[in-house]
Amino acid sequence: MTEPEWRTAIARVRPNEIIVRGHDLMDLIGRHPYADVVFLLLSGALPGGNEGRMVDAMLVAASEHSVVAPSVAAARYVASAGVPLQAAVAAGTIGLGDHHGGAVEAAVRVLLDERDPEAVCRALKEEGRRLPGYGHVVHDPDPRAGRLLEVAGELGLRGQWCARAEALEPAAEAVFGRPLRMNIDGALAALLLELGLDPALGKAFYVIARAPGLVAHVFEEQTRERPYRDVGWERVEYDGPESGSVS
Amino acid sequence: MTEPEWRTAIARVRPNEIIVRGHDLMDLIGRHPYADVVFLLLSGALPGGNEGRMVDAMLVAASEHSVVAPSVAAARYVASAGVPLQAAVAAGTIGLGDHHGGAVEAAVRVLLDERDPEAVCRALKEEGRRLPGYGHVVHDPDPRAGRLLEVAGELGLRGQWCARAEALEPAAEAVFGRPLRMNIDGALAALLLELGLDPALGKAFYVIARAPGLVAHVFEEQTRERPYRDVGWERVEYDGPESGSVS
Amino acid sequence: MTEPEWRTAIARVRPNEIIVRGHDLMDLIGRHPYADVVFLLLSGALPGGNEGRMVDAMLVAASEHSVVAPSVAAARYVASAGVPLQAAVAAGTIGLGDHHGGAVEAAVRVLLDERDPEAVCRALKEEGRRLPGYGHVVHDPDPRAGRLLEVAGELGLRGQWCARAEALEPAAEAVFGRPLRMNIDGALAALLLELGLDPALGKAFYVIARAPGLVAHVFEEQTRERPYRDVGWERVEYDGPESGSVS
Amino acid sequence: MTEPEWRTAIARVRPNEIIVRGHDLMDLIGRHPYADVVFLLLSGALPGGNEGRMVDAMLVAASEHSVVAPSVAAARYVASAGVPLQAAVAAGTIGLGDHHGGAVEAAVRVLLDERDPEAVCRALKEEGRRLPGYGHVVHDPDPRAGRLLEVAGELGLRGQWCARAEALEPAAEAVFGRPLRMNIDGALAALLLELGLDPALGKAFYVIARAPGLVAHVFEEQTRERPYRDVGWERVEYDGPESGSVS
Repeated sequence: MTEPEWRTAIARVRPNEIIVRGHDLMDLIGRHPYADVVFLLLSGALPGGNEGRMVDAMLVAASEHSVVAPSVAAARYVASAGVPLQAAVAAGTIGLGDHHGGAVEAAVRVLLDERDPEAVCRALKEEGRRLPGYGHVVHDPDPRAGRLLEVAGELGLRGQWCARAEALEPAAEAVFGRPLRMNIDGALAALLLELGLDPALGKAFYVIARAPGLVAHVFEEQTRERPYRDVGWERVEYDGPESGSVS
Repeated sequence: MTEPEWRTAIARVRPNEIIVRGHDLMDLIGRHPYADVVFLLLSGALPGGNEGRMVDAMLVAASEHSVVAPSVAAARYVASAGVPLQAAVAAGTIGLGDHHGGAVEAAVRVLLDERDPEAVCRALKEEGRRLPGYGHVVHDPDPRAGRLLEVAGELGLRGQWCARAEALEPAAEAVFGRPLRMNIDGALAALLLELGLDPALGKAFYVIARAPGLVAHVFEEQTRERPYRDVGWERVEYDGPESGSVS
Repeated sequence: MTEPEWRTAIARVRPNEIIVRGHDLMDLIGRHPYADVVFLLLSGALPGGNEGRMVDAMLVAASEHSVVAPSVAAARYVASAGVPLQAAVAAGTIGLGDHHGGAVEAAVRVLLDERDPEAVCRALKEEGRRLPGYGHVVHDPDPRAGRLLEVAGELGLRGQWCARAEALEPAAEAVFGRPLRMNIDGALAALLLELGLDPALGKAFYVIARAPGLVAHVFEEQTRERPYRDVGWERVEYDGPESGSVS
Repeated sequence: MTEPEWRTAIARVRPNEIIVRGHDLMDLIGRHPYADVVFLLLSGALPGGNEGRMVDAMLVAASEHSVVAPSVAAARYVASAGVPLQAAVAAGTIGLGDHHGGAVEAAVRVLLDERDPEAVCRALKEEGRRLPGYGHVVHDPDPRAGRLLEVAGELGLRGQWCARAEALEPAAEAVFGRPLRMNIDGALAALLLELGLDPALGKAFYVIARAPGLVAHVFEEQTRERPYRDVGWERVEYDGPESGSVS
């Protein structure tokens, strides 16, 4: 292959002109909230109804969760080593992996599974897997899920997918034998479907929404903590072979 | 140092509770636009006036500029190699460097320089440097700068820093001998100061604002292009030593 | 979970002491080539025979392939934006994805498939997949594969897995209807198995081996090219909706 | 700027041919140790004497330091979130910043300062800065520095720069009032100069050398630890405003 082809349906840049998905960017600035533009970039069209306001609530819900997230801890370690802000944020962003923001996509697949909710849970249990989007390491229940569904109700966007997500709660309790309440990932998954967005964009939401939280943590680390955050050698337990025990 | 200390003034997470800079996150979701929360995370307080709407316009202005940015080209190359969405976005984010989003911070320093605008320009010229935040590789003028100042005027936020940024245009033309119009970086720098934000957060704006653009490009590359984007060996000119010419 | 546990069998650091997998690092420095230490870190033991020399050849083979690799193009775009060397290298490293260095692991799975070589190829073809580790976008054949097997022969490490990798060539030609010669990924996969390393470490080899190549390209970009590498707006074809065509 | 130029003196790829800095890569594989090729890629020429063996020792010395490094902690947090190996390694690599591997470059600048060693130390002290390359958070002295100089002596490469680095120890003690012994960064800085390499390549050494250590830690985290490493909410102290205290 010789000639690299740059082809895109996202935006056209020509001298003094920036078109984003069919809209002059200058007509968007100051007239549409950022959440509308996020929806436009992800879906290809501006919101026809309350989708932008829903996206806004979803972005706020996922924007920050203190240092209690591997991505934030990683970003702060990297920031402490003396790197530019955007590079430390990027280190954190890499960490929005399958077990972090990625649960949204797994939860979408569960919601799209047309079997009975208990059957879905039983199948997961038999594979030794958890129900993605339900249960939380700190919260019980995760207050963000309930609040997001409340907002969806106010905006007329609490439809079949929210109902399905709620129906999974009693099913999960029956199958897994303990209460498993919807968390933010489960709620985001249901709302992604209510909004008609591509289910593969689950992680995308976290990547966008968490950026200001990561920025704030990196900036705080840079301006308030001493350089070179260190786990401390006394706190690392080595359980490999002793010196001299191997030849 | 033994015990790693995690100390933060950004957010507190306790079971079923998330406090962000003194606000219950549940009270923010659905009640405050994302731009307000970005302002809260960066400044420590919710907007008292139109700051949130200004931030909104700034985020929209910087959200997307097609493939015409090194960060986007990098993100698409990385995406083509078969990596998760957030990792490819992070590769692009790393590239929001001193010559990319970083010009905002350099432009802030120029605005804070208390000398006469022509004196500032002359000093830069003597050092062989450009005027950061003025001139653009594609646009002349960059339409985003004018539109942002227009919105600032509508919101009552077009103050001394915007005036100073505008005064640099004729000064730059006089000193550098050609028209140098304010670009988006110059406008963001002036508005950062109008908003009272820390001048060191210039790059932070780009990191947050460009996230959905990078996400859209990575997703498009993953879903629409063939894997393994290749520059093509014929397009690489090797000008090192010939084989056999070195021993 | 409260207390983060740092547990590792890789190394112990105590004041004035660094033990790596049971060896005093001071005994390794200057006495063992780096390739031996790479083998030690990956396998848990120093080479008992020629494994270190084989690793050395494998690292050299994968160290550099000019700009003709998405990871290198990405690293250079990022470097051009004005970031520290290690950050630009990292952007490239992210790009050693499933379609880049990741083919080694896919090729290992093919080698471990116990069916007849033609049956393996037929199964791939029926799924619409390629044979990983065979064929190359530029080379035919990839000279690195042959050279690596030659070295393996000299070192007494050209065993059953190399034989199996070679047997796939005629099988692939028969099934896919065109010559498909082993490439560097196929050779690395066979040698990984000859060395008894964990098959999941295929990509690990690329990550280690390509580091100096990426470093050299980033350094060259920083020291020899102008800042802000730009694809050029004229080279980007926009095929989204026209402005005004959407409401 | 329209046409992206790919120009490089590092390598030429043409069908069935890979030339690296004037050498056929096939002639390097199995004939030159990886450290020679690292030297070739960084300097432009194969070692004429013992430089390759010195590079080998330097790579081994910097290859691993347990979890006691911000880059490794970051890489493990990111790995725990469920991302591909190369992406987690890259997160760690970003963290080889100015306070991590970057001290090598700062130490080179100190060695190149032609003033009397005590004058150099006094100047740093007056600026409130430390002496880069001397002192260590865990070791006193860092055993890698002494071992590297020992190897340099064996290889006939212990010249003026090593002598200068050693002369800084008593000067630092006299000025800063406590023993400050050369650490690995100081030794690498001196050896970089003995090898005639570009002083700006200090961080480059760490980026290359630490790759296998980072790979081993990421692989261990992926294969041996539970997903989603969490700092634990109880260990994070929030000292921002209380909820309700702000309006």
